[in-house]
Amino acid sequence: MKAQVKKGALAYAMVGGGKGAFIGPVHRAAIRMDNLATLVAGCFTRDSKANAEVGASLGLAPGRVHPDWRDLIASEKGRIDFLAICTPNDSHFPIAKAALEAGINVMCEKPVALAAREALELERLARRERLLFGVPFTYSGYPMVKLARDLVRRGELGKICKVVVEYQQGSFRKIDFAKPLDRRNAWKMDPRRSGPSCVVADIGVHGAHLIEFITGLDILKVAADLSSFATGKRLDDDATIMMRLAKGAKAAMVASKIATGEENGLRVRIYGDKASLAWNVEEGNYLHIKSPFDPERIYKRNAPYVEGLSMASKRASRLPGGHHEGFIEALANHYRAFCMALRGESGCDFPDAHAGRRTIQFVDAVLASSRSDGKWVSLNACN
Amino acid sequence: MKAQVKKGALAYAMVGGGKGAFIGPVHRAAIRMDNLATLVAGCFTRDSKANAEVGASLGLAPGRVHPDWRDLIASEKGRIDFLAICTPNDSHFPIAKAALEAGINVMCEKPVALAAREALELERLARRERLLFGVPFTYSGYPMVKLARDLVRRGELGKICKVVVEYQQGSFRKIDFAKPLDRRNAWKMDPRRSGPSCVVADIGVHGAHLIEFITGLDILKVAADLSSFATGKRLDDDATIMMRLAKGAKAAMVASKIATGEENGLRVRIYGDKASLAWNVEEGNYLHIKSPFDPERIYKRNAPYVEGLSMASKRASRLPGGHHEGFIEALANHYRAFCMALRGESGCDFPDAHAGRRTIQFVDAVLASSRSDGKWVSLNACN
Amino acid sequence: MKAQVKKGALAYAMVGGGKGAFIGPVHRAAIRMDNLATLVAGCFTRDSKANAEVGASLGLAPGRVHPDWRDLIASEKGRIDFLAICTPNDSHFPIAKAALEAGINVMCEKPVALAAREALELERLARRERLLFGVPFTYSGYPMVKLARDLVRRGELGKICKVVVEYQQGSFRKIDFAKPLDRRNAWKMDPRRSGPSCVVADIGVHGAHLIEFITGLDILKVAADLSSFATGKRLDDDATIMMRLAKGAKAAMVASKIATGEENGLRVRIYGDKASLAWNVEEGNYLHIKSPFDPERIYKRNAPYVEGLSMASKRASRLPGGHHEGFIEALANHYRAFCMALRGESGCDFPDAHAGRRTIQFVDAVLASSRSDGKWVSLNACN
Amino acid sequence: MKAQVKKGALAYAMVGGGKGAFIGPVHRAAIRMDNLATLVAGCFTRDSKANAEVGASLGLAPGRVHPDWRDLIASEKGRIDFLAICTPNDSHFPIAKAALEAGINVMCEKPVALAAREALELERLARRERLLFGVPFTYSGYPMVKLARDLVRRGELGKICKVVVEYQQGSFRKIDFAKPLDRRNAWKMDPRRSGPSCVVADIGVHGAHLIEFITGLDILKVAADLSSFATGKRLDDDATIMMRLAKGAKAAMVASKIATGEENGLRVRIYGDKASLAWNVEEGNYLHIKSPFDPERIYKRNAPYVEGLSMASKRASRLPGGHHEGFIEALANHYRAFCMALRGESGCDFPDAHAGRRTIQFVDAVLASSRSDGKWVSLNACN
Repeated sequence: MKAQVKKGALAYAMVGGGKGAFIGPVHRAAIRMDNLATLVAGCFTRDSKANAEVGASLGLAPGRVHPDWRDLIASEKGRIDFLAICTPNDSHFPIAKAALEAGINVMCEKPVALAAREALELERLARRERLLFGVPFTYSGYPMVKLARDLVRRGELGKICKVVVEYQQGSFRKIDFAKPLDRRNAWKMDPRRSGPSCVVADIGVHGAHLIEFITGLDILKVAADLSSFATGKRLDDDATIMMRLAKGAKAAMVASKIATGEENGLRVRIYGDKASLAWNVEEGNYLHIKSPFDPERIYKRNAPYVEGLSMASKRASRLPGGHHEGFIEALANHYRAFCMALRGESGCDFPDAHAGRRTIQFVDAVLASSRSDGKWVSLNACN
Repeated sequence: MKAQVKKGALAYAMVGGGKGAFIGPVHRAAIRMDNLATLVAGCFTRDSKANAEVGASLGLAPGRVHPDWRDLIASEKGRIDFLAICTPNDSHFPIAKAALEAGINVMCEKPVALAAREALELERLARRERLLFGVPFTYSGYPMVKLARDLVRRGELGKICKVVVEYQQGSFRKIDFAKPLDRRNAWKMDPRRSGPSCVVADIGVHGAHLIEFITGLDILKVAADLSSFATGKRLDDDATIMMRLAKGAKAAMVASKIATGEENGLRVRIYGDKASLAWNVEEGNYLHIKSPFDPERIYKRNAPYVEGLSMASKRASRLPGGHHEGFIEALANHYRAFCMALRGESGCDFPDAHAGRRTIQFVDAVLASSRSDGKWVSLNACN
Repeated sequence: MKAQVKKGALAYAMVGGGKGAFIGPVHRAAIRMDNLATLVAGCFTRDSKANAEVGASLGLAPGRVHPDWRDLIASEKGRIDFLAICTPNDSHFPIAKAALEAGINVMCEKPVALAAREALELERLARRERLLFGVPFTYSGYPMVKLARDLVRRGELGKICKVVVEYQQGSFRKIDFAKPLDRRNAWKMDPRRSGPSCVVADIGVHGAHLIEFITGLDILKVAADLSSFATGKRLDDDATIMMRLAKGAKAAMVASKIATGEENGLRVRIYGDKASLAWNVEEGNYLHIKSPFDPERIYKRNAPYVEGLSMASKRASRLPGGHHEGFIEALANHYRAFCMALRGESGCDFPDAHAGRRTIQFVDAVLASSRSDGKWVSLNACN
Repeated sequence: MKAQVKKGALAYAMVGGGKGAFIGPVHRAAIRMDNLATLVAGCFTRDSKANAEVGASLGLAPGRVHPDWRDLIASEKGRIDFLAICTPNDSHFPIAKAALEAGINVMCEKPVALAAREALELERLARRERLLFGVPFTYSGYPMVKLARDLVRRGELGKICKVVVEYQQGSFRKIDFAKPLDRRNAWKMDPRRSGPSCVVADIGVHGAHLIEFITGLDILKVAADLSSFATGKRLDDDATIMMRLAKGAKAAMVASKIATGEENGLRVRIYGDKASLAWNVEEGNYLHIKSPFDPERIYKRNAPYVEGLSMASKRASRLPGGHHEGFIEALANHYRAFCMALRGESGCDFPDAHAGRRTIQFVDAVLASSRSDGKWVSLNACN
């Protein structure tokens, strides 16, 4: 894909990921895990003093800590191999677009844009410029999710009939948006920063991505019921979504920010006509397979002598079975694949601009359905 | 409710529950558990030889084994305290109606009728005749489900916002309807015997009952997507249902007969604004409570020294914690409450004609919604 | 085994099982489950008023409620098919012995005696008189424990190397022996009623029985460390036991009454050189099999289409998979087998006088080892 | 402790951790996680070509890839802040001793020595030279293990009575020592490389460390039964160990390499007279607390709004609850504490030479007991 293959250690810059941010520091730790790329520049926060402090603590030369992402792109163009975008939602699209236009490969947090047409623009731009565009949907980086996909591909589940996905978080039950400590999450409920959706754009997209990633089936249409229960009520914080997939399959999703007491309850079940699978990120080193004619089977991450574990799931593991891996390793898998692709390897397995665009179409279709009292809306109508 | 209070051991008759039947023998074992009523008459199957054999094996006098339920009602009128109806769906309503008209108290398997207006007729008839009418929705007989209801009532969850229910069975993936062994299940897919719905009427009703039982909130409207995946495709075998409940709450249900490899996957989660609860019948001796500010708590059945277990959940237990109880005990709880009510006790806790009728309205509304491509349909429109 | 085969319903009497007793009422419910035997006589408690009340509540004729077990045996000799003994430990041996001498078949709670030589006497007496002697070690009545034994027999685990059994209860942390409500448990810590051991004789015997039942290997020698932590300190309430089994296998057991917060934590793991199994009574409808070369497998009770479930485990099930069975059903399995044996069937599978005697030898050997500071003691030395 | 406080990034060297090694690469990834120290030198394997390749792949200057650990110490003395020792067991002691004598701080894999007197020598040497000596017992780096210790310290469990630890691995059932792929594990069964014990020195020491770490109670005496089941039978591969702890507490441990099908089954239960705790590394983000008077509680890693989580457990977390952390993060916690201590912070929490020595005394006492047929042996006798 990329014309110029990189040799040696890669250099990258980051936008976002300042003090108190959640995901930026996780990206940096994930990238360090395999030592494949070095942070050389950044624009971590709008507060110039804090920005400088973060840069210094990360060992950056002062001249490469930039006051604004536009400056960063202008200055670092040609000096970095990729840009990691870890800002709030509203700036994903402009930053990513500017970076691509400057010839910089991009790893951009989800949602990649606030509307499907923007996401489509990014996808086209990346293709035209022959640049890599990654979207770190962390959960498809888990070895057992790769195994899930591989078992479906191998036909072990038979024809896929029904998919059930839930993503239950209770975070909005903990946050007191009036408190300083909690204010840094407040942007998620602010339509100007978060976009027209909260729960669907923030976590529903993970569910939509996993459905298409694991089953290989497109989501065709959705019918949805969105709610807003938490303080403020400015954006959706709870969703129930019915789906029709390609080849006659159906799906159901519940996603919530007000699932009181839940932490990160992402659970996927796929029912084929021969067998079914179940994966729960909170027990993410395991994958369960059930069939009517066999005992339930539990595949375990990187159990090296077990028949049936796929190569992709083994390659995505760093430690032997029982020595559990988690969220950072899964994100590191996406970065490893992205970096290997930068170096010219083919067949690298990370979510790309297509995945980014599909999930934004999903968000748009869900919003359109909910606004029309649950009418079925086609994703293809959202472009 | 009942004018005439019964003294001493109670006598009952059963319709259905012949050889190979699933639920009839379970009813008989549940009734024996507390020794509160004695089987004295029955009509177990249409095959007269088999009918006589079952009766004999149960110690019945030959004269009280009846060839037809009409004969049974005519002969046993005044000689039995109640009739247990365990036949396929299509005969529930006519038998129950005839029994009530003959002045016989009734315990009738779900669905109590094939349409809401019939169910309403049974409810009115029982009220008018001052007869007891029970519907053995077994799952509300579990001690931890009673505790769930009591915790909601006590306000421990705060205001209820979202309910998620799933009832996943894979039974239609096992059955080869062509095989003699499996043919006894075939009626479930036959609209003449099963009625206009399979999965919703057979197991969806349990979910609907639990929602109203635990939360105390009425299901107001539904929007549904039904499918038929298994061989034959004569009736729905998979459902996704969105619901709006009273007081602004929402609910989602998935119910399936084609959830390959699942056994009896009934799981309920209730999210309030203070805490949430989770119950799974396959780990039915436990109830999980999660809140943002406390460790997750696991209540265990009949843990006698634990603060917070409700009296109703303790009274519904026979054995100390750790000595697990299951399905039969839960059903026995309904029969115990029913028998105590027959003996004149007040406050007995079993699902009644109202619960029976509500669940049929639910079935009718779901069918209407699915037929209209997922439009929201009110349960009150179904009478 | 029994010369005279019984026809029709069986009649039985019970000693023990008065108000507030735990196990007696469970025996009666278990016997009712399959309707194979009818309670016709009893001596439930020494308090004559309470004794009469219990008898009346169970529908017994007043003349068959006896003031003393000696009277019961004298009067009921020839009128009952078996006697169920549910008293505190100290009276098991004299009652069982007297019943056998009177020609009555016996189902006797564990421990069957307070010393191995007494247990041996019961075993010889039953054999000589050609009477059935059952010991309701409930846990070997669980279908998945029968499956465990059958998988070992079939060689699926290969050569058995190591067994780990734990039986963790916290009951002594809850009981305030000074309180009236709790006083009914106090006998367990009274050497005159309980015998020379509390925790080993009360629950350790279940562990010892399961080891020999599942593996088919005799326990040869033990080395033990007993403790007494709870109030009173009159008897052991905590045990760690190392064992050497036949054919070079080893075992470890921890058993405790002071495992604070545990309910009925009986867990068994068996490691063979090809595979291992794990069973936990608190998830008793499942059996886990692990091997180095296959995914972990979970066998589920009565999953009728699953290859590899043994006939014995299916026959010990009453309900389909997912409709969980528990403690009562397991005990009912022993009674069903016992009653079928009384009716002349061969191959009935219930723990007998041999199992009763082996477990008492185990208790004696453990006590001897602990008294000698952990020296290895042979079970054969205990007779 | 350390006289000279380090500023800026730290530099370290590694011995061991060549191609195919398990733990060395994990150490390097763990150190990178927090970016606190940079690898500058190493001696990875005896094969000089492979050694050079590993060094190059890690970006080391050729002059700092040393053919032998003696050369490394001689050359790097004064140029590195610490040495990480990741070789097979037999060389831990000589390398650690030489490093300390050269004034180099040491992080040394367990077992730190093959006999207690050597471990004592290391402890004294580190104290005398005022050097830091860390032993990466990874499991005490888990946040929930730190919480376990803190709950015990706070008195939430009351007086500790009984501890049960198991460490079940089935690795020796997978390995075919004759195969090249598996040969790299063969040293574990070779007394010349592994020392006089396999299972106790390799994983039993983790159990012993956790007992003392969590409870704060010394292991006083042990009585043990060691076995050798796997091919070769040169060293113990299975152990059952009874223990007497300080203040009258007791403990039991089972540790095995032949627990067929187990991956990394380290499970700890601590029973106090008020409550108990349970931790299982394979569900390591959770800690269970049970008491007789409360529902079971599940503490979850880094649940920021939950009362009762200790500061130490929060500080040992990098990601929010539900975003699971695993083995690498736990090891990284030890390195972070070690590096912070190098920088002069006080109160840093990592296992030190004392912990290293205590566990070797444990190994020696277990071996002595097993050789004397299970006699109780005091740890103090092993020096």
